[in-house]
Amino acid sequence: MQCNFVSVSPESDFSIQNLPFGVCTTSGSKAHHVTVAIGDYALNMATLAKLGLFQSIKGLDAESVFSKPYLNDYMSLGRSVWQAVRHELQDFLSNTHNALRSRISASDASVVTPLREAQMHLPARIGDYTDFYASREHATNVGIMFRGKDNALMPNWTHLPVGYHGRASSIVVSGTPLHRPNGQKRPDQTKPPVFGPSARLDYELEMAYFVGPGNNLGTPLTLQQAEECIFGAVLMNDWSARDIQAWEYVPLGPFLGKSFGTTISPWVVTMDALEPFRVPQPTQEPEPLPYLCDESGSPAGYDIRLAVDIKPKEGSEFYPLSRSNLKYMYWSLRQQLTHHAINGCNMRPGDLCGTGTISGPAEESFGSMLELSWSGQKDITLGDSGITRKFIEDNDVIRLSGYCQGDGFRVGFGQCVGEILPAKRA
Amino acid sequence: MQCNFVSVSPESDFSIQNLPFGVCTTSGSKAHHVTVAIGDYALNMATLAKLGLFQSIKGLDAESVFSKPYLNDYMSLGRSVWQAVRHELQDFLSNTHNALRSRISASDASVVTPLREAQMHLPARIGDYTDFYASREHATNVGIMFRGKDNALMPNWTHLPVGYHGRASSIVVSGTPLHRPNGQKRPDQTKPPVFGPSARLDYELEMAYFVGPGNNLGTPLTLQQAEECIFGAVLMNDWSARDIQAWEYVPLGPFLGKSFGTTISPWVVTMDALEPFRVPQPTQEPEPLPYLCDESGSPAGYDIRLAVDIKPKEGSEFYPLSRSNLKYMYWSLRQQLTHHAINGCNMRPGDLCGTGTISGPAEESFGSMLELSWSGQKDITLGDSGITRKFIEDNDVIRLSGYCQGDGFRVGFGQCVGEILPAKRA
Ligand SMILES: [Ca+2]
Ligand SMILES: [Ca+2]
Ligand SMILES: [Mg+2]
Ligand SMILES: [Mg+2]
Ligand code: NI
Repeated sequence: MQCNFVSVSPESDFSIQNLPFGVCTTSGSKAHHVTVAIGDYALNMATLAKLGLFQSIKGLDAESVFSKPYLNDYMSLGRSVWQAVRHELQDFLSNTHNALRSRISASDASVVTPLREAQMHLPARIGDYTDFYASREHATNVGIMFRGKDNALMPNWTHLPVGYHGRASSIVVSGTPLHRPNGQKRPDQTKPPVFGPSARLDYELEMAYFVGPGNNLGTPLTLQQAEECIFGAVLMNDWSARDIQAWEYVPLGPFLGKSFGTTISPWVVTMDALEPFRVPQPTQEPEPLPYLCDESGSPAGYDIRLAVDIKPKEGSEFYPLSRSNLKYMYWSLRQQLTHHAINGCNMRPGDLCGTGTISGPAEESFGSMLELSWSGQKDITLGDSGITRKFIEDNDVIRLSGYCQGDGFRVGFGQCVGEILPAKRA
Repeated sequence: MQCNFVSVSPESDFSIQNLPFGVCTTSGSKAHHVTVAIGDYALNMATLAKLGLFQSIKGLDAESVFSKPYLNDYMSLGRSVWQAVRHELQDFLSNTHNALRSRISASDASVVTPLREAQMHLPARIGDYTDFYASREHATNVGIMFRGKDNALMPNWTHLPVGYHGRASSIVVSGTPLHRPNGQKRPDQTKPPVFGPSARLDYELEMAYFVGPGNNLGTPLTLQQAEECIFGAVLMNDWSARDIQAWEYVPLGPFLGKSFGTTISPWVVTMDALEPFRVPQPTQEPEPLPYLCDESGSPAGYDIRLAVDIKPKEGSEFYPLSRSNLKYMYWSLRQQLTHHAINGCNMRPGDLCGTGTISGPAEESFGSMLELSWSGQKDITLGDSGITRKFIEDNDVIRLSGYCQGDGFRVGFGQCVGEILPAKRA
């Protein structure tokens, strides 16, 4: 399928096969509204709805839902509505005989805005945010550093997707700078803790997915239901202050080492767009308990190429840090969500679940500086610039990106960017 | 001060000195709206606003704010508005010359509803929910059971208020029954984990406080600012499935062992009402780092008498389980909130923070069955009924209550009640 409404380069993240959803404001539409990306443009979904593009879709009040300043209402509608909207959009963008095409030109500013002129916002009001820990390579690397090689993976790790609740209020959209956090840390184990800016500030390469319809309190989800629940995915940088985290996290888990900010990319790539990129997940041994045992159905993994790059404060260009892939993830998205709801915990539209740091087997695939510098024991060299890092320094910019490669097109996620500003004086 | 609008018994939780806020529906007002309790009655704040009771208060659009189905907007307004509203209400209830008194009688159903006819709802939309672990006695008891007497308190515990993020979606209001959760547990450490209903279901006696105005991302709170931020407090039962929790919680903390449900009482007792019941907090040794060092200002503790009772499935009356007091709490509410925001984490109106289980030095003050039955090693006897418990059984009802005793009046919290229903078949 080809877009013939605007031109889309084969290297664009936002092909007609993608059509990711976001929330934006533009100079012409100052109210937050729902948008879909195509090529270098943002489509105004509220205007398209007013023009009647989605009028035949049952169960969708498109004018109302796409005029909202968040995607939660749209996420709540479920897969059959999402697929019908995708179908109408693809027809509009590819079929010159589409009923609406004669009435709209690509230069119509009420419908089409160049991406560089669209201000992107958080795509949803995130009720609850959960972060998993589902890459075996990442959990093993961290485990070796903290507990030694023989006790790297905790006994529960291969039996369930370990996860924890994160802070929803401090999730920000790509481009939002964050201050280096202050906090308690204990650099010298023979002395009391001290207060000050984190000296071991890190990124974590993650993806995160938004829940759609969800479930009622007390009613778990099957693997099949969990899969149907997931609306789409974004890139996520789970910024981590390793020194604060190391001191605080026993016995109740990460808290202030994470909650100073978490950055997500603005475009939510739908699971329907990711469908062609399914691959088998890694073999699971031991076999999980029956509620997590994924024997039938479509492969549960996704082949999504992921990259992290850094623009160091000394430089003006980006250098590679990590090159990974979502396919390395041991526990699949639907296993994570099924486990999350097995106790009856209710998921709501707009809830966000992170996969955990996505590390693969090769060193270049490690998804954090903690792993790349092996807890600060060695330098990470940035290309041939002569610049090195162990952790993030003030005014460094970290950029996550990712895409699936189709035959002549991409389904991409855009970017998840953040600069670390110096700590404020407390 | 005496209420002369309706009669209030000296044993009532809801004296004119209290005036707690909630959200209710009644047969005459089916839309959720803000209410204040006095004696055995619920006042319709939306109607009182329409009648002009709050019209002189600057910065308050009372008709709008009290017609909302949640307290978040009111919580966001800050202490000077809260105090002005409290003043107007106390004048209306105590002063027969109050301008509005001649126009309203206590039998006016648009203003006054008997409490038993008011359906109470969650008082706020809870954006983020955090649970602390701030009772030294509780942390020590749990530590002894899990790690032995010599390693009971972790090294960080006396330096910072340990806390973790909890699940906001599954917080329910008093009276909502919950199903016993299913999940993974590993009762036999020599065998793999098994799946099934929790066999070690527990309550936790806690209080929780709602954040008012909050802070912007990146801007910490001082102790003084944190204190100003807190709107009021409720009772909280942090239901806990100990077997699920024990298996899952390493290394990232409690997750499904808690997220199946958390119950709070419906009436938010304001910090202004609790003001006369301040007491010094326990001595802190070692002295906390400067940002947590509470040397000046009002005492940081509160003398709030707390009780947990059980109505076992075999019986028709309640028997005592725990008798505790908020004054035992090692880390004060303002220390908890200051620590929470020290990394720049933003607090939003309606965020909820739990204190952690409130245990005191005496055995009868232990705030959980885990402690009372010493991890199931001994029976808890229920009065002289001959009934015993180690953990909660199906169809048991757990009831939390609490109050401050004034001179001839009480400032009380009402009840936080929940019945555990049998597990659903997964
Ligand atoms: Ca993470
Ligand atoms: Ca607790
Ligand atoms: Mg984070
Ligand atoms: Mg709970
Ligand atoms: Ni068609």
